[in-house]
Amino acid sequence: MAPPEGEKIQIGLLGYGTVGSQVYSLLEGQAREIAQASGARVSIKRILVRDLDVPREGAPEDTFTDDFKDIIEDDDISIVVELIGGTEPAFDYITEALERGKAVVTANKQLISQQGFYLFQLSQEKKTQIRFEASVAGAIPVIKVLRESMVAAEITSIYGIVNGTTNYILTEMSRTGTKYDDALACAQEWGYAEADPTEDVSGKDAAAKMAILASIAFHSNVRLDDVDCAGIEDINPLDAEYAGELGLTLKLLGVAKLYDDSINVRVYPALLSQDHPLASVGGAYNAVFLQGRSIDEIMLSGPGAGGMETASAVVSDIVSIVSRRTPGFLEYPIAYKELDFFPDENVVSTFYLRLEVEDKPGVLAAIANEFGKHEVSIEQVIQKGRGVHAELVMVFHAVAEKSFMAALEKVSALEGVKAEPRPIRVEGGDEQ
Amino acid sequence: MAPPEGEKIQIGLLGYGTVGSQVYSLLEGQAREIAQASGARVSIKRILVRDLDVPREGAPEDTFTDDFKDIIEDDDISIVVELIGGTEPAFDYITEALERGKAVVTANKQLISQQGFYLFQLSQEKKTQIRFEASVAGAIPVIKVLRESMVAAEITSIYGIVNGTTNYILTEMSRTGTKYDDALACAQEWGYAEADPTEDVSGKDAAAKMAILASIAFHSNVRLDDVDCAGIEDINPLDAEYAGELGLTLKLLGVAKLYDDSINVRVYPALLSQDHPLASVGGAYNAVFLQGRSIDEIMLSGPGAGGMETASAVVSDIVSIVSRRTPGFLEYPIAYKELDFFPDENVVSTFYLRLEVEDKPGVLAAIANEFGKHEVSIEQVIQKGRGVHAELVMVFHAVAEKSFMAALEKVSALEGVKAEPRPIRVEGGDEQ
Repeated sequence: MAPPEGEKIQIGLLGYGTVGSQVYSLLEGQAREIAQASGARVSIKRILVRDLDVPREGAPEDTFTDDFKDIIEDDDISIVVELIGGTEPAFDYITEALERGKAVVTANKQLISQQGFYLFQLSQEKKTQIRFEASVAGAIPVIKVLRESMVAAEITSIYGIVNGTTNYILTEMSRTGTKYDDALACAQEWGYAEADPTEDVSGKDAAAKMAILASIAFHSNVRLDDVDCAGIEDINPLDAEYAGELGLTLKLLGVAKLYDDSINVRVYPALLSQDHPLASVGGAYNAVFLQGRSIDEIMLSGPGAGGMETASAVVSDIVSIVSRRTPGFLEYPIAYKELDFFPDENVVSTFYLRLEVEDKPGVLAAIANEFGKHEVSIEQVIQKGRGVHAELVMVFHAVAEKSFMAALEKVSALEGVKAEPRPIRVEGGDEQ
Repeated sequence: MAPPEGEKIQIGLLGYGTVGSQVYSLLEGQAREIAQASGARVSIKRILVRDLDVPREGAPEDTFTDDFKDIIEDDDISIVVELIGGTEPAFDYITEALERGKAVVTANKQLISQQGFYLFQLSQEKKTQIRFEASVAGAIPVIKVLRESMVAAEITSIYGIVNGTTNYILTEMSRTGTKYDDALACAQEWGYAEADPTEDVSGKDAAAKMAILASIAFHSNVRLDDVDCAGIEDINPLDAEYAGELGLTLKLLGVAKLYDDSINVRVYPALLSQDHPLASVGGAYNAVFLQGRSIDEIMLSGPGAGGMETASAVVSDIVSIVSRRTPGFLEYPIAYKELDFFPDENVVSTFYLRLEVEDKPGVLAAIANEFGKHEVSIEQVIQKGRGVHAELVMVFHAVAEKSFMAALEKVSALEGVKAEPRPIRVEGGDEQ
């Protein structure tokens, strides 16, 4: 077959690490498919690197430059692909590219979750596009699905397992009863966790991704700072074990919900019924579960971001841009609503609670009495262990979080209740 | 807020049943979101119905017509949405619409799986678009994901649970050990199966959907007639039970695989490891599992086509068209490759087999000997039952299907082997 015809589209690539070099080889290897799908011949013209002296494979030597001007001032380059990460200088580079009407593709979740709103507005104003599929959940095309397929679906909630590291650790803890530290060490050994895992295990990485997903789904401006997050560092393997006995699975969940004209977006460890589609998403996998007024529910799942998955998402963004390059094109806008944030304390949640108590008469009665005074109703209680170190495992009926927290404060102060109790939310039921 | 500005896009709707009326109310109710997302005000101008005298809710009375000319000859109508189903007159209506440069949205899997190739070519030639998200898997946007997000992913295999009725029946059979007839009756009672369930239980409905998915994923022309299908009517509940004991789950699977420059697309009952993501897709749910060279695997899942899900998919197709209406737009092309079909007999598969045998010495040896002669290697064999009616449950190592079928023919003819054995493929391993 003859080489495909079509307009020539040239790309400036910022960064040539694992993902960058894979983007290069995908664009080369899939040139024909991309030409067929987009009607254009797409190629990388220049690649920005920090140090020109490092030997590199793939792209020809004269493609590389250490001067951003070689890219931004080149009018033949119509798409800038940012893969350097971090907020600076990525923000300046992207801003300048959009200012000049170039389209932008980025995998930078930190930047989008902090400066996304500004960049979306700028791209609209300059009648160009910014795409960021690779910033959330690797090759799972959740951004495109939310922006383009769910327009009329009126999304009301998003549940996400959007951090592979923590999902791997929790899966191991549930499967083998191992402790957090050992599961983390194992994740590090297998390359699922970094040497410094703070960003992942604190829930902050998941919070950035949930900010992006909530912004798109609810057409609003949700920034990283708007997302409360709790991590998995303090998870007790006993909770994973008891949850299993109750038919529940422990996950680090991002939860974004729409309440009329306000939204609540958080990340926390949560228990899911083992029947829930997200419960079976194990290991380093990611999944996003969507509910809406005109769709019952949809789940997208797959491996978390590996280099090849991220590169594949970047290339599909490039193809989407190239296919929409006609003049006067109006991009799917983002964040055109101003929604309030729904206060955490008013969210109605179902809680699981493990209490270490002294095994003597009257303790359970006192606890039940205190919850009752706050109109917090116990659905199920199981006594574990015997002797001095008894444990009560309790599941409550759905209740406003402020009522539960107020009751819990009183219960913690009761004589006979030991250690600080850590409640865990149960999600995926009909509580909201 | 002021009503949204933007170009006015008018639609001609063919059919006003459950889905049609829901498309009408979604477009009305979500007018603002759609205007924001697409930059246009979208409305339904005319609706074709068979009988004007039937009273209808929703659209104003003068919207309805019983004459297709009122739609096709109206130059203000730029999108035709076909929801009448069947191949005639749907094919003529769609052809005429494309001929006149109107864009088309259809939910018609029968038509697309039989005439899709012709219609895709026609839409390309006329520089317009045809979209058919609702034809497969309800609101799960698998067509859009395959066409637009997986361009560089080089899809190598698709596994689909694409028929909710059969998945409901098999889930019930596995869960409760009930027989096929009883599970079908139950599905009919709950509205998951039609009075005449032939299309679903024979695998033909799934075959139409797999033809569409394979055409898109492999850029080739796969018609309904190209897809061999076997249904679930003859499934024995014993197989569901024994499969469970082996850690396997019974599903009606659509399987499409790429072998270099040829493809194999089939629908058959298959066993999946309970760890496989598709295994946990229960009830009337649908799911599509994709594997590719640059994506490890991605799964999309959700409820099968209910009226609201189908309407939601139709509306997202409308939004996609409206967002791409700029002149000179080149649609993502479909089916530009000419791939051969890979012969079933050369496919390498793993088989499960339940054999009813006489429980006397030498039978197993004779069976094993016959398989051995054909180089079909047994991985596992379990003897069930005692006395005259013994059963052998066998799982084999992956082998070319022609070798297995040849061996099975000989084994079936052996003295001591009773009833006709029905092998079931085991999918989702590393056999291919």
